[in-house]
Amino acid sequence: MEISRTHSWFDAIKRVERSVVFQGFIISIIIVAALTVGAKTYPLPYGIDKAINYLDTFITVFFLLEISLRFLASESKVRFFKEPWNIFDMVIVAGSLVPISDTDMVLVARLLRVFRVLRLVSIIPDLRFLINALFKAIPKMGYIALLMFIIFYIFGAVGSIFFQGVNDKLWGNIAISMLTLFRIATFEDWTDVMYETMEVYPLSWIFYIVFIFLTAFVFLNMMVGVVLDVMTRETAAQDQENQENNHQALVEQISQLQAQVSRLADKLDAQQGDDKHK
Amino acid sequence: MEISRTHSWFDAIKRVERSVVFQGFIISIIIVAALTVGAKTYPLPYGIDKAINYLDTFITVFFLLEISLRFLASESKVRFFKEPWNIFDMVIVAGSLVPISDTDMVLVARLLRVFRVLRLVSIIPDLRFLINALFKAIPKMGYIALLMFIIFYIFGAVGSIFFQGVNDKLWGNIAISMLTLFRIATFEDWTDVMYETMEVYPLSWIFYIVFIFLTAFVFLNMMVGVVLDVMTRETAAQDQENQENNHQALVEQISQLQAQVSRLADKLDAQQGDDKHK
Amino acid sequence: MEISRTHSWFDAIKRVERSVVFQGFIISIIIVAALTVGAKTYPLPYGIDKAINYLDTFITVFFLLEISLRFLASESKVRFFKEPWNIFDMVIVAGSLVPISDTDMVLVARLLRVFRVLRLVSIIPDLRFLINALFKAIPKMGYIALLMFIIFYIFGAVGSIFFQGVNDKLWGNIAISMLTLFRIATFEDWTDVMYETMEVYPLSWIFYIVFIFLTAFVFLNMMVGVVLDVMTRETAAQDQENQENNHQALVEQISQLQAQVSRLADKLDAQQGDDKHK
Amino acid sequence: MEISRTHSWFDAIKRVERSVVFQGFIISIIIVAALTVGAKTYPLPYGIDKAINYLDTFITVFFLLEISLRFLASESKVRFFKEPWNIFDMVIVAGSLVPISDTDMVLVARLLRVFRVLRLVSIIPDLRFLINALFKAIPKMGYIALLMFIIFYIFGAVGSIFFQGVNDKLWGNIAISMLTLFRIATFEDWTDVMYETMEVYPLSWIFYIVFIFLTAFVFLNMMVGVVLDVMTRETAAQDQENQENNHQALVEQISQLQAQVSRLADKLDAQQGDDKHK
Repeated sequence: MEISRTHSWFDAIKRVERSVVFQGFIISIIIVAALTVGAKTYPLPYGIDKAINYLDTFITVFFLLEISLRFLASESKVRFFKEPWNIFDMVIVAGSLVPISDTDMVLVARLLRVFRVLRLVSIIPDLRFLINALFKAIPKMGYIALLMFIIFYIFGAVGSIFFQGVNDKLWGNIAISMLTLFRIATFEDWTDVMYETMEVYPLSWIFYIVFIFLTAFVFLNMMVGVVLDVMTRETAAQDQENQENNHQALVEQISQLQAQVSRLADKLDAQQGDDKHK
Repeated sequence: MEISRTHSWFDAIKRVERSVVFQGFIISIIIVAALTVGAKTYPLPYGIDKAINYLDTFITVFFLLEISLRFLASESKVRFFKEPWNIFDMVIVAGSLVPISDTDMVLVARLLRVFRVLRLVSIIPDLRFLINALFKAIPKMGYIALLMFIIFYIFGAVGSIFFQGVNDKLWGNIAISMLTLFRIATFEDWTDVMYETMEVYPLSWIFYIVFIFLTAFVFLNMMVGVVLDVMTRETAAQDQENQENNHQALVEQISQLQAQVSRLADKLDAQQGDDKHK
Repeated sequence: MEISRTHSWFDAIKRVERSVVFQGFIISIIIVAALTVGAKTYPLPYGIDKAINYLDTFITVFFLLEISLRFLASESKVRFFKEPWNIFDMVIVAGSLVPISDTDMVLVARLLRVFRVLRLVSIIPDLRFLINALFKAIPKMGYIALLMFIIFYIFGAVGSIFFQGVNDKLWGNIAISMLTLFRIATFEDWTDVMYETMEVYPLSWIFYIVFIFLTAFVFLNMMVGVVLDVMTRETAAQDQENQENNHQALVEQISQLQAQVSRLADKLDAQQGDDKHK
Repeated sequence: MEISRTHSWFDAIKRVERSVVFQGFIISIIIVAALTVGAKTYPLPYGIDKAINYLDTFITVFFLLEISLRFLASESKVRFFKEPWNIFDMVIVAGSLVPISDTDMVLVARLLRVFRVLRLVSIIPDLRFLINALFKAIPKMGYIALLMFIIFYIFGAVGSIFFQGVNDKLWGNIAISMLTLFRIATFEDWTDVMYETMEVYPLSWIFYIVFIFLTAFVFLNMMVGVVLDVMTRETAAQDQENQENNHQALVEQISQLQAQVSRLADKLDAQQGDDKHK
């Protein structure tokens, strides 16, 4: 008796959790949460500001309830914690429990509330799928990223050794140098940096040209690699499936033909046997 | 009697509307309209300015006539209104009916006349085809655009929360912050923005580097996606058609062979029958 | 007698003109010409400057001789003038006949001598091939370029109508506006332009964002189109050839099999005939 | 007796040299070397600076030992010197033998030590593979690079001839002009350069627009070329292998069928023989 009652409760929660209406309701709450985050960056009259604070408490409580509901509705509690998107949601919800009123933590609390917008990604399946796809593309770029880092590190060290005396703000140490090099790689006022060092080292343009060519060249190859990787995976898969189907059709047809011929041979054998018996 | 007369009128209009000469004439009128739009941005002597105003009236009347003609020449009046390019043309023509002489509306009237240049797109079939193709590419980018917007929104909120005090003109509220972030995404003087906030928050370079990498990475994937999409559609289609033809040829050839073998089996059966009868 | 003598002369010229040594010699003369062009941009002592002027005369004479030789060596004089690269060479050589000493024309004369460097393109077959390939890619981009121009023209007119009063140097007339828009399309200090107009029209950021998205989007599609076009032509061709070979091999093998089966049928017929005759 | 002893020594060295532990140890030493290079760009207290100098000596000695070990472990001493990565390592190790204490050479010595970071590339097989792949892509771009250089050279000469009087720092001679053009190609404050020359030559915008379009167009084609090249090589290879496998399977199956049919023909021959003998 007890079991079946719990069971019906469980089913009811599950039905609610999976209903389109409920999903749509959560999405609208997330959008409201996003809007309050945006609204907070404007100067607001006292009344509205207070209302937003109440709204914020409501959203926090709602999110807590929603994730508890989802936990209760999950069939296997262990698998619930194995799903990275659930952990992601729980961290975001836990983050927004920091009270916003505390003056000392107000910046941190507001910052943590901003991340509630990210729940849009975890609730919309297409976005979740997209993020998963993006993550899959990262490891393929691992070694190229390492190579890029080595290039930045070496040019950062060389830049720091030679140009430290020219402009301490741009080439003071290897970390600052690498930031300056990143700026040069984005072509942001890179000639100003170059002209400055060229006054002391007239040949320093070589440093910049070589760096720009190297990074552009390696970046180009990285891009090509990613394009290629995605393409090979998707286009080829589809193309191959098609080819495979055609191939299988031919193989089967020829197999039928082989069976036909072997039946023919059997008949001939039988005929020959008949001839002999005659 | 009445019907046939209307009919011949209708045919005449249709013949005029579809003639290459008429099409060429409309295109040249549109180009003249475009040139008057351009000429108006230069200081002109009174006489020429007046002449252009008369010309403008003529163009407006001509466009009105042309679209009426097109309406009369269309077989189904309902289908005429269902064609988006016709609606597009009518809106543009209606827009240029605002009189240019009215001092209050002069800017708006001139603006609406500028859009007459867009009729070039609706009259040249290749351009119309191109625009249709571009529109088709948009939905494929929908979710990536949403993801991009979420990234901008979150970084905009974070930027506004932390850097509002540093520079109110760049980080004053979430809308201004997102405009500043768009500027950073185009690498436009982004280091000036960064160096300013780094004086208050020395670690704020992390904010910029992460934002640039995220947007560049997502943008790269969007680009790859579009390239892939177009490619899969076109190249694969052609490739597959070719393969399919080859495959069909083989299937047919083997079928012929099967028929041959089965005829052989029939013969053998007949022979065996003969043998038995003997 | 007379004819054969002319013939041997003709053959000798042809042999010289086609020899690798002669080709290498012309290339080195072109490189020397390029170097004198570069050297002339430096302040030079009187002696060297004079020597370069003599060298220049020598190069001009040499080029004249070379092209005459090439003309004499060509089998069909009409076809010689039909080859665009020959016309190209002749125009460049003719251009450098303008005397450099004349004080009035000195800039033009120096400019025309610069173009002699372009003869490197017409003399090295691989570069000529490359240029031909690049030219072939242009028409495919025709309509997209027209669309781009229409976008620039409309935004140029709109920009000029609204922002003329804000900054006459950037938005004075439609031509200046289009140059400013090109600058914005390259992201060159585009925010400075935007912030200036936003002080008068606070919503003018929409104008810039829409323009940047439109041009970037159309440009992206143009790029995709070119990549696609080249790819379809090359990759597909190779891939198809390979497939075609495989397909032909199969067709032939099955044809052999069919012949085998039909020979078998013939034998069976013969046997049956024998049986009947018995 | 002597030989076998040397042999066991040789084997021991080889075993050490190829062990994963030893490889990992070398990589960590290289990372330590990289960190000392980075640390040196910060102001350090005397004690740590001294410790780093001692560490530097240790790393230099270690690298010397490691490369000697590798030389001893190599089976063919000639092939050891033919491997470019070994030469690369030796040059880097030799470079860091310059004593860092010498005041005159201190910059050079520090610079040479920076390149020790590059040993990461030569020791990690994946990075070595990546670099080899990048090098392979270079020759394909040879002629396009030459074309690009010709464009820069001609525009550099033209720019220098006309704009030398406008701004000697930007257009002083052909070398400076080409550097300025490279800056324009990266869109770095190119409008400032243009507006300056437009004050003297109002039509000089043509020069910039043509240059930007030419370089962008050629660069685009270069990029397409590289993408194409890599793609054709990799995708096609994989695709072809797959197709080839399918093709081989069909060929074999049909061959079996042919054998079957020919056995049938043999049987029929035998039967006919029997019939005749009867």
